[in-house]
Amino acid sequence: MSDLSAAKAALKSQRIETPSWAYANSGTRFKVFAQKGVPRTPQEKLDDAARVQEVTGVAPVVALHIPWDRVDDYAALARHAEDLGLRVGAINSNVFQDDDYRLGSVTNPDPAVRRKAVDHLLECVDIMDATGSRDLKLWFSDGTNYPGQDDIVARQDRLAEALAEVYARLGDDQRMLLEYKLFEPAFYATDVPDWGTAYAHCRALGPKAQVVVDTGHHAPGTNIEFIVAVLLREGKLGGFDFNSRFYADDDLMVGAADPFQLFRIMFEVIRGGGLGPDTAFMLDQCHNIEPKIPAIIRSVMNVQEATAKALLVDVPALREAQRTGDVLGANAVLMDAYNTDVRPLLAEVREEMGLDPDPIAAYRRSGWAERIVAERVGGTQAGWGA
Amino acid sequence: MSDLSAAKAALKSQRIETPSWAYANSGTRFKVFAQKGVPRTPQEKLDDAARVQEVTGVAPVVALHIPWDRVDDYAALARHAEDLGLRVGAINSNVFQDDDYRLGSVTNPDPAVRRKAVDHLLECVDIMDATGSRDLKLWFSDGTNYPGQDDIVARQDRLAEALAEVYARLGDDQRMLLEYKLFEPAFYATDVPDWGTAYAHCRALGPKAQVVVDTGHHAPGTNIEFIVAVLLREGKLGGFDFNSRFYADDDLMVGAADPFQLFRIMFEVIRGGGLGPDTAFMLDQCHNIEPKIPAIIRSVMNVQEATAKALLVDVPALREAQRTGDVLGANAVLMDAYNTDVRPLLAEVREEMGLDPDPIAAYRRSGWAERIVAERVGGTQAGWGA
Amino acid sequence: MSDLSAAKAALKSQRIETPSWAYANSGTRFKVFAQKGVPRTPQEKLDDAARVQEVTGVAPVVALHIPWDRVDDYAALARHAEDLGLRVGAINSNVFQDDDYRLGSVTNPDPAVRRKAVDHLLECVDIMDATGSRDLKLWFSDGTNYPGQDDIVARQDRLAEALAEVYARLGDDQRMLLEYKLFEPAFYATDVPDWGTAYAHCRALGPKAQVVVDTGHHAPGTNIEFIVAVLLREGKLGGFDFNSRFYADDDLMVGAADPFQLFRIMFEVIRGGGLGPDTAFMLDQCHNIEPKIPAIIRSVMNVQEATAKALLVDVPALREAQRTGDVLGANAVLMDAYNTDVRPLLAEVREEMGLDPDPIAAYRRSGWAERIVAERVGGTQAGWGA
Amino acid sequence: MSDLSAAKAALKSQRIETPSWAYANSGTRFKVFAQKGVPRTPQEKLDDAARVQEVTGVAPVVALHIPWDRVDDYAALARHAEDLGLRVGAINSNVFQDDDYRLGSVTNPDPAVRRKAVDHLLECVDIMDATGSRDLKLWFSDGTNYPGQDDIVARQDRLAEALAEVYARLGDDQRMLLEYKLFEPAFYATDVPDWGTAYAHCRALGPKAQVVVDTGHHAPGTNIEFIVAVLLREGKLGGFDFNSRFYADDDLMVGAADPFQLFRIMFEVIRGGGLGPDTAFMLDQCHNIEPKIPAIIRSVMNVQEATAKALLVDVPALREAQRTGDVLGANAVLMDAYNTDVRPLLAEVREEMGLDPDPIAAYRRSGWAERIVAERVGGTQAGWGA
Repeated sequence: MSDLSAAKAALKSQRIETPSWAYANSGTRFKVFAQKGVPRTPQEKLDDAARVQEVTGVAPVVALHIPWDRVDDYAALARHAEDLGLRVGAINSNVFQDDDYRLGSVTNPDPAVRRKAVDHLLECVDIMDATGSRDLKLWFSDGTNYPGQDDIVARQDRLAEALAEVYARLGDDQRMLLEYKLFEPAFYATDVPDWGTAYAHCRALGPKAQVVVDTGHHAPGTNIEFIVAVLLREGKLGGFDFNSRFYADDDLMVGAADPFQLFRIMFEVIRGGGLGPDTAFMLDQCHNIEPKIPAIIRSVMNVQEATAKALLVDVPALREAQRTGDVLGANAVLMDAYNTDVRPLLAEVREEMGLDPDPIAAYRRSGWAERIVAERVGGTQAGWGA
Repeated sequence: MSDLSAAKAALKSQRIETPSWAYANSGTRFKVFAQKGVPRTPQEKLDDAARVQEVTGVAPVVALHIPWDRVDDYAALARHAEDLGLRVGAINSNVFQDDDYRLGSVTNPDPAVRRKAVDHLLECVDIMDATGSRDLKLWFSDGTNYPGQDDIVARQDRLAEALAEVYARLGDDQRMLLEYKLFEPAFYATDVPDWGTAYAHCRALGPKAQVVVDTGHHAPGTNIEFIVAVLLREGKLGGFDFNSRFYADDDLMVGAADPFQLFRIMFEVIRGGGLGPDTAFMLDQCHNIEPKIPAIIRSVMNVQEATAKALLVDVPALREAQRTGDVLGANAVLMDAYNTDVRPLLAEVREEMGLDPDPIAAYRRSGWAERIVAERVGGTQAGWGA
Repeated sequence: MSDLSAAKAALKSQRIETPSWAYANSGTRFKVFAQKGVPRTPQEKLDDAARVQEVTGVAPVVALHIPWDRVDDYAALARHAEDLGLRVGAINSNVFQDDDYRLGSVTNPDPAVRRKAVDHLLECVDIMDATGSRDLKLWFSDGTNYPGQDDIVARQDRLAEALAEVYARLGDDQRMLLEYKLFEPAFYATDVPDWGTAYAHCRALGPKAQVVVDTGHHAPGTNIEFIVAVLLREGKLGGFDFNSRFYADDDLMVGAADPFQLFRIMFEVIRGGGLGPDTAFMLDQCHNIEPKIPAIIRSVMNVQEATAKALLVDVPALREAQRTGDVLGANAVLMDAYNTDVRPLLAEVREEMGLDPDPIAAYRRSGWAERIVAERVGGTQAGWGA
Repeated sequence: MSDLSAAKAALKSQRIETPSWAYANSGTRFKVFAQKGVPRTPQEKLDDAARVQEVTGVAPVVALHIPWDRVDDYAALARHAEDLGLRVGAINSNVFQDDDYRLGSVTNPDPAVRRKAVDHLLECVDIMDATGSRDLKLWFSDGTNYPGQDDIVARQDRLAEALAEVYARLGDDQRMLLEYKLFEPAFYATDVPDWGTAYAHCRALGPKAQVVVDTGHHAPGTNIEFIVAVLLREGKLGGFDFNSRFYADDDLMVGAADPFQLFRIMFEVIRGGGLGPDTAFMLDQCHNIEPKIPAIIRSVMNVQEATAKALLVDVPALREAQRTGDVLGANAVLMDAYNTDVRPLLAEVREEMGLDPDPIAAYRRSGWAERIVAERVGGTQAGWGA
């Protein structure tokens, strides 16, 4: 099998997980601009996700967020997904939007609040059981805004205790994915601020606990692909929350701010053997001003383009240049792949998959955008609050 | 007059402006935690501001925000302020919370939206006339999220045109204060991202246009006191939006994150002759998790402490050390003032002003906190949306 | 003339200026790794620069640095350049490497040191006269390491005075290019830290004073293309010091760290009418570990590739998408150009210029690298100190 | 024992380690400004360190750097230290200043270079044996400047292998302290860039491997005290390299840039039980423009002042406020300690230790500064290169 056909095969088998909440309204603390046609229910979010899968062929998995996607019958929701050619991905817990969580959830000084938070996490595992989801994704907004507000170490102890209880509840084929974030909404000390903290907790918990890298959650200047490479070396990379940023956690479309960085990340993923199903390639984005479905399609395409370029790196030439200390030569091998226009290759891949070579055009032609604006009238649009 | 009595006199005449919206609910994009007793009307915000003035004696000015403080009769609102021993400070325009402003206000590609935005700014000048306010404060969230989304230069041209129209409307004793901000809510290119841009526009407009420095609106590593010094040298410092930050625009209490920076800023203010009434010393903070009135009192006190320390710098000794190139000696003169505990001095100042030496304790004793929780039942709490 | 032929014409007429010091040894404060074959004299630096011009055809200008390129007869040096098909570009002053400059040069508290510094700047104008150079490039490392060390405003006053004296000395066709830098080697307050400060001084001086944008001299998160656009709008962009960085002033090859940013910068240059000879496109890089001449060739090519992509943007389509508020469409137009592989186009351009389509290969074949290693034996290699 | 006497006892038993190289010349890549009287030999560095100990009483330990402090007889050097009332602290290895290390030391692609680097590290353990030093401090400048230059994971493997060999060589009472650094001199990917990487290696090695926190080695916005707290919780904090920074690794005097941060760090040290001898409190600074010995004395005093303030925190009141969720109250408890002027307390401590209450004045009076300028004539001043 030639390198090109291997690359095509890898591109066809790649799976990108889209988040239910990206189909709903989002915004900044200053304003949420509502968009017409936005889903009002978890089912409608899945309907939109099915359109993304229809035109891309690599996005059959949809992450849910509890309570934003709370339903009475999760098994029925999973069947709805299945009927649409989808399956349920990560279950994202939410322990940051109740008034009780003002001073934290699992790290709150108040044991009653901690109990409530852990109970919610355990409920999420129940939902995993009901939906067949493999991954429990944990992001804690917990932290403090002012020095002295709470004890940093005590909060770590409480965190460890909560994680241990949830870890014990996981089934044999289930995983816990722990996400870190530098800041926001906590502004002084976040309880899981960096990969080191997430890694230390996951290592202590065991093999079912893995780290999630959200590409928008780092300090300026952080080398994200280094973290990816190290986590893969340690067997601790559970997945990604993809998005892009110029400043902080901007949650723009992945690949929009620094496509070269995305390429370098995908190169380390491939080099570390992480392109397969054990890594969850999730999007986590906010389409505050742009239409949501096309933005998600575009994001999926951006990940595909970065992956394709990374697959085209001439690794033997790279290794030889590295081995001989040829700095410019090694860099040139990498840049040659990056500078390649892979859009024709991806068009071919899509055609071989029976898809339109241009997913955006295919979506436009489908009339879905006009249909949801016409049909989704009344009711309450979904957003971060519901 | 000794240096100490000069310092005391300066501290007594200092004026700190509190923002009406800081008395209301605020939060992050993730959650607004409502607090009991929060005002429901502009009048109630002023009632709370009066408590801050009552115990500090240096905060008699209250900035308003339109439309959050929209009332039918602005003259009546100004009289309500006056009855409470307050006066109306800056009128803050808001051209970021209408759906029309999704792609910008005064820089929007759509001329109809620009017209609407400019009309709002002109309305704010009407409100200044009605309330006796001197300062129109302009912060534009305008910008773009994606490269290519709009033309950077065309947006500058539209901005200049809008500012010119508003500038022409200002009365003889009125000013336009233009604020800059690195990012958020725009994530790729903000139209007024830095002091250089604000300065260039203000210079082109004329003497009534001045720059506002929000201490949370800079890139990491920016030397804010340098900007303050340069703006004062150019005659273009209109005022401050004080708050503090560890990461981005965190809007924590001023002095909470880096009190030494606040001291250095106040030192440059004093050195540049900017401590008087031509500089508006405004707070602009979000008390997301802490009680609002005590947080504002504490913030006023933090500004006072930084000012007191800056006033205590032995300037002749500093100048001599600087002149002779004594690096450590000059730094030591500055640090001597910073390391001084000025709380006893401020207690004296307060007693000489007929105030309690401990404003926080005085507020606690007043029973106001309990009273507003008991009385402000029903209605809609004020927040960023209203 | 088609768009493609216009793009080709623009690419053929583009001029990139290489710095004499990039051919010499450089390093970090930790270590300078000497390379074999490095020039020992200004003449040998020009010999190397001629090789870059030979294979790229767009780099006939070489910036000099005084005193690193000090010679007895500057007219002879200029003739040597001319004989090699080169001309002398910017004269870079150096007022940071004498022991006298420990506390600053033109902003030093000691008037004798300031006099010495200004005299050096005036000498640089003499050298411009002798060499036919148009641009005096001023970078001041001046600043302070500790708060209080010197008076920020007094230093601005001294700076303004020095600049005014030098400005008055400029000939009719000469310019002063003022560079800013956030930090390093000053660590507390740099006297020209940002574009706003450089702009304010240049505006006060007059039309012959222009700002230089060094792409490595900004705080994290700064939008450099915004600054470029604004300076062009104000008629104050004098030129670039190109390089790239992941963290601070890393001085890596331009385009190596964030090629998308370089593309965006070149797009704003073209949009603002700045691609012509009034903008000096200089490299300012340190090839600490890689061979210097090939690194400079590669850098020139990287600038060409970014320029080519920027020239390919479908501007009418972009403007239409911007006008109608089509966020994703406008972004897609820009990305289409960026994602194009322009290497074939540039190969064509080179062939039409009578050059080898592959400059790196042509340089390799020339045997120059081996020749300088063999011939440049003995003597003192050039570096930042000489 | 009262809290105050406990604080005094802690301050008296505190030990701060000064680095031999801080007494020597240092600078930036732009210029090293030589200072008169600077030591020419390791012995003279110790002579200067003895002056710091003489006036502060808490700095009897001196870190050495190999090869900068290379001598024929290390036992004799240790005796010289002892005669001066000093002892040898950490042995700092240097695998970054040989031409062989251009592409790395222990992570170099060339096995011969790796062998050389490991041999140097083993030699440093020999020197520890000879001098009675407990700590081997490892800082690796290893990394890459360009994407693709070398394989990130392979470099981690080589690093792990080298560390394991050195770890095996350590004696029972010896430790390995592994330092991390975000960037510089490597500009793309540093091999030990963050605490997570250092922690993962130290954990794999065993209990004698500990992490060193250099306060200047983090990305902007990093919460250093959080890292300190977490490392102490994991039993992995080996010590500090203290200095301060506004931007990058500025290596200014500790406490000069953000004294509140230093206080918060010391508070977490005390809270985590890390004030004792198991934590090495080392300075690692560059006194580029200020006189070195007074700068080091000042630095020691700054650490003492931060420690004193941290010791004065009313911990029971803090815990009670934290337990009850009193955000402002808890913050106020911390700030009360920070705002205290502890200089009188430290003057008392010094007098009780038989020292002058003002170490700077005592040093000035000693005449040492004038003596070394007069006596240290000729020879080669020590610096980073020797």
